[in-house]
Amino acid sequence: MSKGLPTRSENYSEWYNELVKKADLAENSAVRGCMIIKPYGYSIWEKMQRALDDMFKETGHQNAYFPLFIPKSFLSKEASHVEGFAKECAVITHYRLKNDPDGNGVIVDPEAKLEEELIVRPTSETVIWSSFKNWVQSYRNLPLLINQWANVVRWEMRTRIFLRTSEFLWQEGHTAHATKKEAEEETAQMLEIYAKFAEEWMALPVVKGRKTANERFAGADDTLCIEAMMQDGKALQAGTSHFLGQNFAKAFDVKFQDKSGALEYVWGTSWGVSTRLMGALIMAHSDDLGLVLPPKLAPIQIVIVPIFKGDEQLEKIAEKVAPIVKSLKAKGVSVKFDDDDQARPGWKFAEYELKGVPLRVAIGMRDLENNTVEIARRDTLTKETVELDGIEAYLIETLDKIQENIYKKALDFRTENTKEVNSWDEFLVKIEEGGFLMAHWDGTSETEDKIKDLTKATIRCIPLDSEMEEGKCVLTGNPSKQRVVFARSY
Amino acid sequence: MSKGLPTRSENYSEWYNELVKKADLAENSAVRGCMIIKPYGYSIWEKMQRALDDMFKETGHQNAYFPLFIPKSFLSKEASHVEGFAKECAVITHYRLKNDPDGNGVIVDPEAKLEEELIVRPTSETVIWSSFKNWVQSYRNLPLLINQWANVVRWEMRTRIFLRTSEFLWQEGHTAHATKKEAEEETAQMLEIYAKFAEEWMALPVVKGRKTANERFAGADDTLCIEAMMQDGKALQAGTSHFLGQNFAKAFDVKFQDKSGALEYVWGTSWGVSTRLMGALIMAHSDDLGLVLPPKLAPIQIVIVPIFKGDEQLEKIAEKVAPIVKSLKAKGVSVKFDDDDQARPGWKFAEYELKGVPLRVAIGMRDLENNTVEIARRDTLTKETVELDGIEAYLIETLDKIQENIYKKALDFRTENTKEVNSWDEFLVKIEEGGFLMAHWDGTSETEDKIKDLTKATIRCIPLDSEMEEGKCVLTGNPSKQRVVFARSY
Ligand SMILES: [Zn+2]
Ligand SMILES: [Zn+2]
Repeated sequence: MSKGLPTRSENYSEWYNELVKKADLAENSAVRGCMIIKPYGYSIWEKMQRALDDMFKETGHQNAYFPLFIPKSFLSKEASHVEGFAKECAVITHYRLKNDPDGNGVIVDPEAKLEEELIVRPTSETVIWSSFKNWVQSYRNLPLLINQWANVVRWEMRTRIFLRTSEFLWQEGHTAHATKKEAEEETAQMLEIYAKFAEEWMALPVVKGRKTANERFAGADDTLCIEAMMQDGKALQAGTSHFLGQNFAKAFDVKFQDKSGALEYVWGTSWGVSTRLMGALIMAHSDDLGLVLPPKLAPIQIVIVPIFKGDEQLEKIAEKVAPIVKSLKAKGVSVKFDDDDQARPGWKFAEYELKGVPLRVAIGMRDLENNTVEIARRDTLTKETVELDGIEAYLIETLDKIQENIYKKALDFRTENTKEVNSWDEFLVKIEEGGFLMAHWDGTSETEDKIKDLTKATIRCIPLDSEMEEGKCVLTGNPSKQRVVFARSY
Repeated sequence: MSKGLPTRSENYSEWYNELVKKADLAENSAVRGCMIIKPYGYSIWEKMQRALDDMFKETGHQNAYFPLFIPKSFLSKEASHVEGFAKECAVITHYRLKNDPDGNGVIVDPEAKLEEELIVRPTSETVIWSSFKNWVQSYRNLPLLINQWANVVRWEMRTRIFLRTSEFLWQEGHTAHATKKEAEEETAQMLEIYAKFAEEWMALPVVKGRKTANERFAGADDTLCIEAMMQDGKALQAGTSHFLGQNFAKAFDVKFQDKSGALEYVWGTSWGVSTRLMGALIMAHSDDLGLVLPPKLAPIQIVIVPIFKGDEQLEKIAEKVAPIVKSLKAKGVSVKFDDDDQARPGWKFAEYELKGVPLRVAIGMRDLENNTVEIARRDTLTKETVELDGIEAYLIETLDKIQENIYKKALDFRTENTKEVNSWDEFLVKIEEGGFLMAHWDGTSETEDKIKDLTKATIRCIPLDSEMEEGKCVLTGNPSKQRVVFARSY
């Protein structure tokens, strides 16, 4: 019944690829590195968007939309930004096609060459800060709290569906503030929102931390992030929030008049999460039978499968089920009654397991006699027979329990696979087992690079809430004040 | 108080441009033809999206996402589609930049040339039908009812903010069906949805009709559309729904096995509306003082402006207002209490008029004594003093009345400016007055072209619901069975 899904232990990577395809989440397109997000996958993304968008708006942010194209010269304005982003980009050089004189379809019209090439946005700091310059005159225009839902393109050589694609969907927040303190608070606030979303909606525990200088966003003074652990023990960066200092303000000359009348540069932040979260969601919770979705993000939360022979039986079941469906829908539960008579119950059970529907309710003729239904939980794969009276409340309660249980399972897994490591020998052994290694580091980029070269592990972050502790760097033995998170990562 | 807005009668075109800018809806960007949709404008677009998306989902459609890029060769697969769309496109030829060896920023890396150029989608039929080929095997996979919210690019030489921009936002529906009849019904259903949205949400009366062969979508067998009249008497096409026949199915070899086991080509439709609707909304209702927004799409439906001197007075007013705001919000009304003490009431009144806030409530110390408020309607510019008791219900009722009144005003305007025309001399006079001319036409493209050359008027549509009537073509005198809508257009 596993529809030919490889198991996680056989081949985790292949399991993921096949699951994405077989559960109808997404597929690769004819354009290398660009994916097609299919309706089932997209409906999960829509739920993510809605939840995040509500949180952004509750904290005073407004959505806007900026151009897809960036003039090439804009990228060069912020010195370290250009190093990070003006590399693997989609470059538009022409604006017209014409019929091939040889009759072979269409060719690029050489006469329609752009004076300045345009880049498809890899991120929008440059185009947005060039607007901020016109939007900000006085302290009364601040803060600017802008978010954009958009597609971006980074030409990736090695792509992986949802995790690393040339085109992806995301939101990018861009804010401007009168003071450094306010911009730092915004950076921290958005990290908290991402962590809350990951934990409460995705059922995904995350470590909140600070990136080392090596891993910082190109153009930022400080990058905060949330890091999650996948079931193969690898880390996945699930969201970042950048304190930009006055870097972009200076690059794009964005100044404001403060209350005393003096002209000052503004302070900036940017922050984003992307369809990469879909990859994290799939990898964190699913099993060898298919997707396991937290109820809050499941497109179908409850499926009701009638067990019947012939129309007459189906009608009787449908009559019993109709008021339950109605009452659940009125309470905001997404419920599907699958009365398709072309597929057998067993096939349907496997299909909804594959698709990660949190609760499956089966109801047959004997259930009608006994006034019961059979309820199957996707997360625990347990079944129970339950009285029909009060079934709606029971189902809703169970959805809550599933949400909690999925989170707890992921948290337990992370706890088991997070290890303190105190010597280099130990590091070399433990890193092969996967998971997060909490180890001392001497704070230098050299050591970080060397550890990466030797083990492929990087510093995922310097945790924000970990205790200070005197220690010695796991590689060099030099003094350290805090353990950091090492892991191999996606 | 008009903030320097030109009047409509002075210069309609300039009035529109300035209004878009001064009301903070959108602005031009550094990239020619690409606009920036500012938060106030974007929040109107979000309301449009939500209402449309709900209607699409209620009729069984699902959202998905397809790649931004289209391989050049895809465009050539459907013969008439390539004629229509493979012209003014953004063409990606390279995928990498590198540092300029001369030290002047970045340049295109000549070694990173794509084997096949990619086109930024001008519309997604080709990329979507190449997926449909893999999604459809049997009648059990049909219908496919897909919608996508996306950005598209058509390189426009003469651009106009919201109305014709190189990049714009839209939704594009793409469906595949087992029978011709079903696809035709889908085409008609989506036109009805667009008409309903225009009339009930945008307060915009529309003529539902069929495009002539000249104006048909490239690749369609039939194009239905809704046409609205702007205040200058010009027509604006507000949405289109295309019956694609089996054209794309044949071009992309999309076949299905029917119940008898025979292989058949599927039947297709596509349909779309775009940020052009923002232009229609602005042009249809606004006046010389600024925007006039239908309450259902207004980001702020009610603004409450306190008239006060000093903190003590403000506090008293705020106390009185707080429960009203709370109760309105609980009823889903978007309400703002503007307690800014840096701007005068008169300035605020003008500002909210400019922004098209449907209802303005002013409350001062005398109002507190009398237990009244002053209510100003944006659509009629009338004011009245109203008792505070029961104010919430009264405000909500008034919002409904404003929605109806704006629609009625636009409908009356259209009725006054729609004229039956029976001779060529009359046509030449009336077309200069603007509006819709209902005239007989002999059904040939030649006559249509000639009328366009002579008068710049095109056939906006052959109305779906107009009576059959024997007559003679207004230009050639040849026989005709039905009047069609002629107008100059955006
Ligand atoms: Zn981190
Ligand atoms: Zn029409």
